[in-house]
Amino acid sequence: MEAVQSSIDMMWVMLGTILVFFMHAGFAMLETGFTRSKNTLNILMKNLITVALGSILYFFVGFALMFGTSGFGMIGTDGFLLAGREDIGFFVFQAVFAATCATIISGAVAERMRLGAYILLTIGMTAVIYPVVGHWVWGGGWLSQIGFIDFAGSTVVHLTGATAAFITAWKLGPRIGKYSGKIVNSIPGHNLPLGALGVFILWVGWFGFNGGSTLAADPELVPPVILNTLLSASAAVLSTALYTRLRYGRIDPSLTMNGALAGLVGITAGAANVSFVGAIIIGLLAGVIMTEAVRLLDAKIRVDDPVGAIAVHGVAGIWGTLALGFFDTTGGLLYGGGAEILGIQTVGILAVIAWTTVSATIVLAIVNALVPLRVAVEDEESGLDFSEHGSQAYAMQDVLSGAPPTASSFAERLNQLGEHPAPQKP
Amino acid sequence: MEAVQSSIDMMWVMLGTILVFFMHAGFAMLETGFTRSKNTLNILMKNLITVALGSILYFFVGFALMFGTSGFGMIGTDGFLLAGREDIGFFVFQAVFAATCATIISGAVAERMRLGAYILLTIGMTAVIYPVVGHWVWGGGWLSQIGFIDFAGSTVVHLTGATAAFITAWKLGPRIGKYSGKIVNSIPGHNLPLGALGVFILWVGWFGFNGGSTLAADPELVPPVILNTLLSASAAVLSTALYTRLRYGRIDPSLTMNGALAGLVGITAGAANVSFVGAIIIGLLAGVIMTEAVRLLDAKIRVDDPVGAIAVHGVAGIWGTLALGFFDTTGGLLYGGGAEILGIQTVGILAVIAWTTVSATIVLAIVNALVPLRVAVEDEESGLDFSEHGSQAYAMQDVLSGAPPTASSFAERLNQLGEHPAPQKP
Amino acid sequence: MEAVQSSIDMMWVMLGTILVFFMHAGFAMLETGFTRSKNTLNILMKNLITVALGSILYFFVGFALMFGTSGFGMIGTDGFLLAGREDIGFFVFQAVFAATCATIISGAVAERMRLGAYILLTIGMTAVIYPVVGHWVWGGGWLSQIGFIDFAGSTVVHLTGATAAFITAWKLGPRIGKYSGKIVNSIPGHNLPLGALGVFILWVGWFGFNGGSTLAADPELVPPVILNTLLSASAAVLSTALYTRLRYGRIDPSLTMNGALAGLVGITAGAANVSFVGAIIIGLLAGVIMTEAVRLLDAKIRVDDPVGAIAVHGVAGIWGTLALGFFDTTGGLLYGGGAEILGIQTVGILAVIAWTTVSATIVLAIVNALVPLRVAVEDEESGLDFSEHGSQAYAMQDVLSGAPPTASSFAERLNQLGEHPAPQKP
Repeated sequence: MEAVQSSIDMMWVMLGTILVFFMHAGFAMLETGFTRSKNTLNILMKNLITVALGSILYFFVGFALMFGTSGFGMIGTDGFLLAGREDIGFFVFQAVFAATCATIISGAVAERMRLGAYILLTIGMTAVIYPVVGHWVWGGGWLSQIGFIDFAGSTVVHLTGATAAFITAWKLGPRIGKYSGKIVNSIPGHNLPLGALGVFILWVGWFGFNGGSTLAADPELVPPVILNTLLSASAAVLSTALYTRLRYGRIDPSLTMNGALAGLVGITAGAANVSFVGAIIIGLLAGVIMTEAVRLLDAKIRVDDPVGAIAVHGVAGIWGTLALGFFDTTGGLLYGGGAEILGIQTVGILAVIAWTTVSATIVLAIVNALVPLRVAVEDEESGLDFSEHGSQAYAMQDVLSGAPPTASSFAERLNQLGEHPAPQKP
Repeated sequence: MEAVQSSIDMMWVMLGTILVFFMHAGFAMLETGFTRSKNTLNILMKNLITVALGSILYFFVGFALMFGTSGFGMIGTDGFLLAGREDIGFFVFQAVFAATCATIISGAVAERMRLGAYILLTIGMTAVIYPVVGHWVWGGGWLSQIGFIDFAGSTVVHLTGATAAFITAWKLGPRIGKYSGKIVNSIPGHNLPLGALGVFILWVGWFGFNGGSTLAADPELVPPVILNTLLSASAAVLSTALYTRLRYGRIDPSLTMNGALAGLVGITAGAANVSFVGAIIIGLLAGVIMTEAVRLLDAKIRVDDPVGAIAVHGVAGIWGTLALGFFDTTGGLLYGGGAEILGIQTVGILAVIAWTTVSATIVLAIVNALVPLRVAVEDEESGLDFSEHGSQAYAMQDVLSGAPPTASSFAERLNQLGEHPAPQKP
Repeated sequence: MEAVQSSIDMMWVMLGTILVFFMHAGFAMLETGFTRSKNTLNILMKNLITVALGSILYFFVGFALMFGTSGFGMIGTDGFLLAGREDIGFFVFQAVFAATCATIISGAVAERMRLGAYILLTIGMTAVIYPVVGHWVWGGGWLSQIGFIDFAGSTVVHLTGATAAFITAWKLGPRIGKYSGKIVNSIPGHNLPLGALGVFILWVGWFGFNGGSTLAADPELVPPVILNTLLSASAAVLSTALYTRLRYGRIDPSLTMNGALAGLVGITAGAANVSFVGAIIIGLLAGVIMTEAVRLLDAKIRVDDPVGAIAVHGVAGIWGTLALGFFDTTGGLLYGGGAEILGIQTVGILAVIAWTTVSATIVLAIVNALVPLRVAVEDEESGLDFSEHGSQAYAMQDVLSGAPPTASSFAERLNQLGEHPAPQKP
């Protein structure tokens, strides 16, 4: 019987692993769609290399630092290369998580960060920075000991990634042409259908991200987690659509897409701890908070984040983590509890921001000593696909020029054949 | 032991839920690919908002009307906000189904329906119209009592959605430029690779749609359901390819893609009730029937359906539902049964068409009193992305114009560097 | 208890089936992205028809030849149309595998092979050529009797497909313009983001390809298989990126994407038989070997393979199969075993290459007698979408020309409205 149960739980965790891995396809499509075509291959390479590097490094180092025997509640100390560990299923689930955290950065630094510098930063993120946070919260470290709640990682994964993204984007400075004096220019993404596909894929993957974090196929726990995930993201889509309609006069497509992600980030901390109505409220607010955060970062703080990653993962991550102080059904303020949870959550958020800021700053200083963080001006202007890869993402010229038949040659040829075109539709 | 079995069944239903959710990515890509680029953001927003709104409304209202205690076999009466319900896994599976039904409409009304009006219609669909049909067939209502068979929803989901799509598309009228006097113009989709991706994703999701409808991981039942789904869709691809080759002189790509969907819709009613050879025959005919239905709707009835949703979901849905009268292995005409099943299936189809026609007409009348169904002529011409969202789906200009290096500047620069291009291939 | 275990195992195999089916979406996107836009619909049709035809033929013929009662260890002899078989779940998993083998060819012969000829070849592949190999290794045939190891098909699936791809591409000759005297021209793919999406989807699907090949949800076996798959692919991404950086001066995006696939093909034979570090080494070498193989095939042997399928599936497949001779933890050379495994693996590889070469040559001769293998020169130049389907994959003209508002008309209109554009970002 025990063997059967372990089969079932293993299968659930493997499904979660596969779904979280799929999120990397989502990130790649989202970031590709929301940036310019001249930087497309570069962002795809950043995403692909992140998951590859993250998996390998987490195997060699990260997992041990995160889940090894705790040293003073601060860091794990054994289990490098999985030495002495039997829980391979647990490891592989955690490995794809680790890469997720690192890949959040790639969107915020897109279109200007040198690939080599990005790779070095990713090494720091997956080998050390993220595992330390993970140890504090999920590896038996000090934050778990004081009762900090983060079910699937609003803070551990998303805020950690977004904090490092903020520091890096701030150090890099904005893309050329983003700010002209007082004017904030919008640099539209080149392929929003791919961006939307990315959002849908991320949402699908998130069912594994939150659902798999149960680590067991518990029939009482899993369905509510999945439902909370669905409801929060749905509510955030609706609130973002409505809020942008009211504030800007139209439903803003890219903000609404990011709204879905904000709702997902927002429910990640509390997916197992809040009610269905709680999840809806968390999502509704996540969409609005993210929309204002985008504006604040873009126009006031002036940190250029091409895909909105800092607002989505960072600000909505903070909101989701704090929301447990209100909506936790076993002690939140709205359920008759005191401010204790809210206080602990705040401590956790501040600690993670502090650690990530300091450690990412140190890593970036080391990286900067080895290789410039930013590409040269002329390389940024010609595009990173050309300057870093000597290549182009699209050869769409042949769509429009000689290669395929023009509309007129098309009709002409069909006339020659004495045929009528087959109905192109549907 | 019972706990273990419930873990297993829960996991299967959750997998089905995630796969059905993924279908929304498929619908979004299909509808994007098969319509024009100037309406892309709008169709993406329709798809994203449909799943969000559908999930929330089904939680508040729809599920109760569908699966609550039956009032006269016509409608459910309790369980709003899941009050008194424990079966969260069952709910979340049903919730993603509900959104699927509504999103069928978005394709048929694409490129001309006002987003606000569409949203109001979606509210009607997911809160009332679909739940009533669902109650009749799956919620213990009158159609289930007379023995109507619809395993996973050829009628409940697909015909209901397609009937409402037909009514709405008919009321909206065709897109500008679709018909010029006697001439039926073809308006080609702008990105068929995305459309093809949508078809593949829908097919993947359909394994959850049909497979999950077993509601339990029954090792005797699930594999035949999955295999029937695979065989019917495969047969329909082949028959559509062959039929369009014979009828139009070439394998028509977009009809063949829709052929896969027709085969999937066709097997949905009987996936658990027909033999493998039966599934193949159902699929073969589904492809041919859909192809002729597209032509009939497009050229004769002149209801403009940009993606062919009415033929795929409606006509193939009717075929799949009726097919049980012939192919049901426990009572179909070809298995020694009488015409009883065929008669009951016909009653069900007619009842669902009648209800959906009447209720959708009423809802549309209410909507029309609040907001015009159709965008203004100049907005349709400039595209809904611009008129409704003030935005554009692509910024592909930079693919072709100044931003990225041209082929010649590319070669020139490499010459300056004294390098040869890295092999671009593979 | 046994019933419960069979539910669990069935569910795992069904999940594997769905994931392997999803790989067909990956192949379609990969091959679309890496070829020219004028041949896009054609490659999509090839992929869609392959999975449809493969599933149906494998049901009628292939499965029986592969898993029927063995005739002299050479071929199965019963079970046509699943007669007498109860293991439907096993069948459907094998059916999607069969289609995978056939679809490998479509990439290598892209942009010049006539669709009709390709379909006839696919019939030969899925009905006979692949099932015979499968019988030898997995159906109790002679290779399994001598101890040949191929856990999930580096040889059975990938090398078989790639060998047939090589023979066909060689017979077809290169695309027009590929070679001009001594010069090897690069023909860039038209949409690399779709290609990258294809790689991610294939990777996701591969977890089912390798993971599902356990055929049971064994909690001791499945997680290591999944982890080996992740590590090998990750290592291959890194080694390809590094190797192309060193050899060509830049990280080559399309080779690095293919690197992921090479790592996946490489670990497929030994996913259940090698250690984690072994998987990493197999992947590291797979990336480098594939990169050199692409160069060798392209520039020396001059077999034109638009997507690199022969190098990825064939050469990396050979490497993965041989690697067991070194890395098998229960008898490889590096684990204290002799050269026995290496010898047996070599015999298996040679036998599969010989059989596939001979049988594919015969099939191609028959096909060629019925229909020319290659399209006419003018059809190749105008593109197969036009010549074979009378259609086009994109109508992107409307992105750039009149239909959607230009940047200036956009600004102008907003000025008229007295509004400022909503922030397009993020």
